[in-house]
Amino acid sequence: MKAAIVNVTGYAGVELARLLHRHPEVQLTQVTGRSAVGQRLGDAFPHLADIDLVIEAEVSGSVDVVFSALPQIASAEAVIPLLERGIKVVDISADFRLKDASQYEQWYGVAHPRPSLLEEAVYGLTELNRGEIRGSALVANPGCYPTGAILALAPAIRAGIVLEDMVIDSKSGVSGAGRGLSLSSHFSEVNENVSAYSVEGHRHLPEIVQELRRLRRGFEPRLTFLPHLIPMTRGILSSCYVLLKDGAVASGAAGLKEVRALYRDFYRGEPFVRVVEESPMTKHTLGNNSCIVFPTVDLRTNRLVVISCLDNLVKGAAGQAIQNMNLMFGLPETAGLEQLALYP
Amino acid sequence: MKAAIVNVTGYAGVELARLLHRHPEVQLTQVTGRSAVGQRLGDAFPHLADIDLVIEAEVSGSVDVVFSALPQIASAEAVIPLLERGIKVVDISADFRLKDASQYEQWYGVAHPRPSLLEEAVYGLTELNRGEIRGSALVANPGCYPTGAILALAPAIRAGIVLEDMVIDSKSGVSGAGRGLSLSSHFSEVNENVSAYSVEGHRHLPEIVQELRRLRRGFEPRLTFLPHLIPMTRGILSSCYVLLKDGAVASGAAGLKEVRALYRDFYRGEPFVRVVEESPMTKHTLGNNSCIVFPTVDLRTNRLVVISCLDNLVKGAAGQAIQNMNLMFGLPETAGLEQLALYP
Amino acid sequence: MKAAIVNVTGYAGVELARLLHRHPEVQLTQVTGRSAVGQRLGDAFPHLADIDLVIEAEVSGSVDVVFSALPQIASAEAVIPLLERGIKVVDISADFRLKDASQYEQWYGVAHPRPSLLEEAVYGLTELNRGEIRGSALVANPGCYPTGAILALAPAIRAGIVLEDMVIDSKSGVSGAGRGLSLSSHFSEVNENVSAYSVEGHRHLPEIVQELRRLRRGFEPRLTFLPHLIPMTRGILSSCYVLLKDGAVASGAAGLKEVRALYRDFYRGEPFVRVVEESPMTKHTLGNNSCIVFPTVDLRTNRLVVISCLDNLVKGAAGQAIQNMNLMFGLPETAGLEQLALYP
Amino acid sequence: MKAAIVNVTGYAGVELARLLHRHPEVQLTQVTGRSAVGQRLGDAFPHLADIDLVIEAEVSGSVDVVFSALPQIASAEAVIPLLERGIKVVDISADFRLKDASQYEQWYGVAHPRPSLLEEAVYGLTELNRGEIRGSALVANPGCYPTGAILALAPAIRAGIVLEDMVIDSKSGVSGAGRGLSLSSHFSEVNENVSAYSVEGHRHLPEIVQELRRLRRGFEPRLTFLPHLIPMTRGILSSCYVLLKDGAVASGAAGLKEVRALYRDFYRGEPFVRVVEESPMTKHTLGNNSCIVFPTVDLRTNRLVVISCLDNLVKGAAGQAIQNMNLMFGLPETAGLEQLALYP
Repeated sequence: MKAAIVNVTGYAGVELARLLHRHPEVQLTQVTGRSAVGQRLGDAFPHLADIDLVIEAEVSGSVDVVFSALPQIASAEAVIPLLERGIKVVDISADFRLKDASQYEQWYGVAHPRPSLLEEAVYGLTELNRGEIRGSALVANPGCYPTGAILALAPAIRAGIVLEDMVIDSKSGVSGAGRGLSLSSHFSEVNENVSAYSVEGHRHLPEIVQELRRLRRGFEPRLTFLPHLIPMTRGILSSCYVLLKDGAVASGAAGLKEVRALYRDFYRGEPFVRVVEESPMTKHTLGNNSCIVFPTVDLRTNRLVVISCLDNLVKGAAGQAIQNMNLMFGLPETAGLEQLALYP
Repeated sequence: MKAAIVNVTGYAGVELARLLHRHPEVQLTQVTGRSAVGQRLGDAFPHLADIDLVIEAEVSGSVDVVFSALPQIASAEAVIPLLERGIKVVDISADFRLKDASQYEQWYGVAHPRPSLLEEAVYGLTELNRGEIRGSALVANPGCYPTGAILALAPAIRAGIVLEDMVIDSKSGVSGAGRGLSLSSHFSEVNENVSAYSVEGHRHLPEIVQELRRLRRGFEPRLTFLPHLIPMTRGILSSCYVLLKDGAVASGAAGLKEVRALYRDFYRGEPFVRVVEESPMTKHTLGNNSCIVFPTVDLRTNRLVVISCLDNLVKGAAGQAIQNMNLMFGLPETAGLEQLALYP
Repeated sequence: MKAAIVNVTGYAGVELARLLHRHPEVQLTQVTGRSAVGQRLGDAFPHLADIDLVIEAEVSGSVDVVFSALPQIASAEAVIPLLERGIKVVDISADFRLKDASQYEQWYGVAHPRPSLLEEAVYGLTELNRGEIRGSALVANPGCYPTGAILALAPAIRAGIVLEDMVIDSKSGVSGAGRGLSLSSHFSEVNENVSAYSVEGHRHLPEIVQELRRLRRGFEPRLTFLPHLIPMTRGILSSCYVLLKDGAVASGAAGLKEVRALYRDFYRGEPFVRVVEESPMTKHTLGNNSCIVFPTVDLRTNRLVVISCLDNLVKGAAGQAIQNMNLMFGLPETAGLEQLALYP
Repeated sequence: MKAAIVNVTGYAGVELARLLHRHPEVQLTQVTGRSAVGQRLGDAFPHLADIDLVIEAEVSGSVDVVFSALPQIASAEAVIPLLERGIKVVDISADFRLKDASQYEQWYGVAHPRPSLLEEAVYGLTELNRGEIRGSALVANPGCYPTGAILALAPAIRAGIVLEDMVIDSKSGVSGAGRGLSLSSHFSEVNENVSAYSVEGHRHLPEIVQELRRLRRGFEPRLTFLPHLIPMTRGILSSCYVLLKDGAVASGAAGLKEVRALYRDFYRGEPFVRVVEESPMTKHTLGNNSCIVFPTVDLRTNRLVVISCLDNLVKGAAGQAIQNMNLMFGLPETAGLEQLALYP
């Protein structure tokens, strides 16, 4: 199998290259970039010196699958002609995640270039949409925040044990902001600092709401989602707060046990979701495709608290993209993703 | 005026020394420490080389005020005889913060050595209890988390515009855990990492609840408080979430304006609380005694979101202690605390 | 006394503002900036909210002293007319540091706009040139690296105990690279990383050589200076290596004692240079104007090793600039610079 | 093939487990630990949850190779009986690195428990001692600093182009200090800080000198080696300074070209040493077994400057240990070590 990466020069792009290089069934045969065309990949990114490719301007020749790591809008434009040529696509941008074109326009400020594809595209949160992903030619890879947040809340919502008012408070490393320069990613500004951003509404909010709604008929989350930037490079930890419905689970320690069992059952057999009983840390996912989910109950307030964490560039981007590709091509879901986390 | 610091060898202790050294009206005349007795302060802590004191075993001679930076229990034991000698005390430990001795026993695991003092002690959140602090001989300096959390929520609770279900999600630098060694403060474990801790209930929770209840008759907060450790040394940022009562403020942007006005009015004239209209960052408080408070409304869910930040060792400990001392002795409240934040 | 800061919007500029705000004898009356003109200083830099000034386009009205924090070339151009109006200037840029105009052209790539001023300007390494600074109208504030490196080596060179082959290996925080955006200051690139830069020759090299040569007639240093970028915001630590002349000091421990005594004598009474007997750390200078100097001898190789450290934005820039201004105006040298280091 | 790790609970131990888990020819069948005996490996170290082993007290049963990650002295004691049972050993401690038992005693403060083994053991700097390692039953895995330093200097010394006076200035992340608690690894002390340590002589010095001497008959390095601690977790960058012999290479740019060619030739075909022409960074080796070597010449002083970097836990410990094991058992040298560096 041959794969290409469109826009390899961002952090998600190089992470795809790193992972695909070790994939047993796939050969990375082409990489494109908007800057750096004509440069050897290993010159632009010394850690990829073992990959013998030159950065090209466009995808050409025959490939089986293309990963697009372009920003929104640019990605849709690049990907549509490839789809028309019959190439399967995993799109890491936000261009095919929202099902409703008017929502897309509202949050991204431009009309969607091909609304009909919104229907066709499958939202690639692998654990929830495995079946659809298998048959899909276009997978919209989820955002980094939605991946962790949805995996944290899905079991409880599906089971109908929680109310609709909820808060997701996320803490992210800086690589999520990409390789583009900005004062908010400038070392001296970020180091020894923490702040909330996108307080008026982050673009991942409609994506989270859309997917949570699909989990249970009639469920209408009233969600406040607040992301924070913290001084580290990789990793997202999301703390999710939602009241349990009265009587939905037993009171006290017995209810906590029920909740844990519910989560363990929901994710039983999942290779990349680990339900744990102690407060998790992002470091345990560094460079690895897992999402760790820790459900607990604040017994004083009868509130479900679920903490999830993942590596935003792996399960939150490149890793999940490869997981989806594996499904699309009938490969073992874990192929190329076996690497353990780097600790410490 | 002569001041002594009991247990100067922790982070709060050395921060007190740093600040008192520049206080125009107070002379630091004595420092004690459990370890390092007999050492010159500047040998144990080179950044304090300009302070010409030897670390002693106990407070002796005449002093007007003592700051205790001992851990709980040890602090009460050290402070009681000083109070009996008529020395005013600002206690940085948790020993006199809770009014209810049974709560103290529940959260700290031992009976309180002198419950009668719990009545007498004044909770030293300066902005809320200024009058009582002025006349007090024993001020219980608030915890670092409670300071930021209570200042964030007080105006809304006092005004009666919010419901009782609330979440406080706090992110703290590591210095809050002190100078004692533990794996959870080990550099290679904390760096490039984030996690929640004390998920079953942090000791600052009862303190926050106690003070929030005092803000409005009949108000009974159902609070989930979750602290997180992030890879920086100083600073706490707390994001507070609570639904607005229906109709408590106008809907939409007008309501947001009302909320901001309410906060500005509440803290008008305060030298150390700054109400802002943009998402704040801890870096803007580094080494400085201010608490920045940013109230906003998530219009989609009618939820009040208040973000506050401060330096846990200054407004969250040593700085507020000096602010309280200034009041206790009739000095200008800002004396010794004029230093601007260190940026970047 | 009235002071103005030209280009307050860089890191050295805001640090000048922070320090001058607390200076007992000087009033900061004007700040200019290339960007942000018309903005209130406290809006652009929230930590300076207490300073009630608007950023202006140019220095106007009467001021006694101007600090220029512009980049090279722009600084000379801005400063020359001010000097002609009789205003004293402390220039933080590199424009007046090199005495030889051809060296300036070689290292900065343009002809110097007013070579005659190179003669007039005094190199403001306060401890070495105190007398000349007192009478000067134009002080060229030293670079951050040269300050620490020259203070580390001056006593040994003046005393004639070392050979001319020497290595200075410096480790710097990222704020030295300024507030301008670049990939090499991008958080995700700098964090968890270390690298050497300017390997072909850093612009501070000729400045260091020039000043070391002045310390002893005929001394011609053959210096390799290599700066490294490390993942922290403030601070420079320089490790300096130079062989002792045979017989210059006693052999063994006695020689080490001689060297220490020589250094202590050289800096006796200096308020901002501290000679120590244990390996120092940058953290002990954070936000403070001191330079810590630790001389030792590698007895196995008869090599003098001197380690110095300082805060690059204080003793390495804004603090030393104020120290120089104090001298130029007959104020106490320590005025406005009494703040202790922030630890931890 | 079956492998065991003795003392898996330190950072080198868990890194061995991470890497061996992905080794195509080796099965990790046993792990021991001094603490945590009886715990499941994945409970003690959640990132290793996929490895189904319980931590045992001692190596038992049949294994082909043992990696010892114990501290010195304890390691020798544990390893000697295993060798006697015919098990091959890669020892990560310092116990078999020095050939001279009196040196061992001088630097480690105790007599060596089995001096005869010092002869037998092969110093496992793979690139230099490949032949001997192949036939060895006991490989002394090099220290993290020596690996980078020796690889940086070996080509120049072997070629006879440098003098004997030399300086190695190293900057290390904190994981090199291990998982044991100490104030010098306490987050709030290390973060935003840099300092030199072991100024009187680091234990890796004799190891470096011993190996450099072996590179050329009669070569007697007079080496000053100074390690520095910087605020990151993994990575060592060493800057090595040594004067070129007069006339050893052409002057000017031609000489630089000669030096580069010499280095490229020396390491031609090496899978894990990369000679580069731009200043390297540790980040490009994160989690990967390569050592990047950048030789250059300071033309102003005729000084060879070589900068090398590596991941102290991989090429500086666990990775090189596996590289050595591969040689000892006739496996492909790169087996299990193909993972690319994690960037950013």
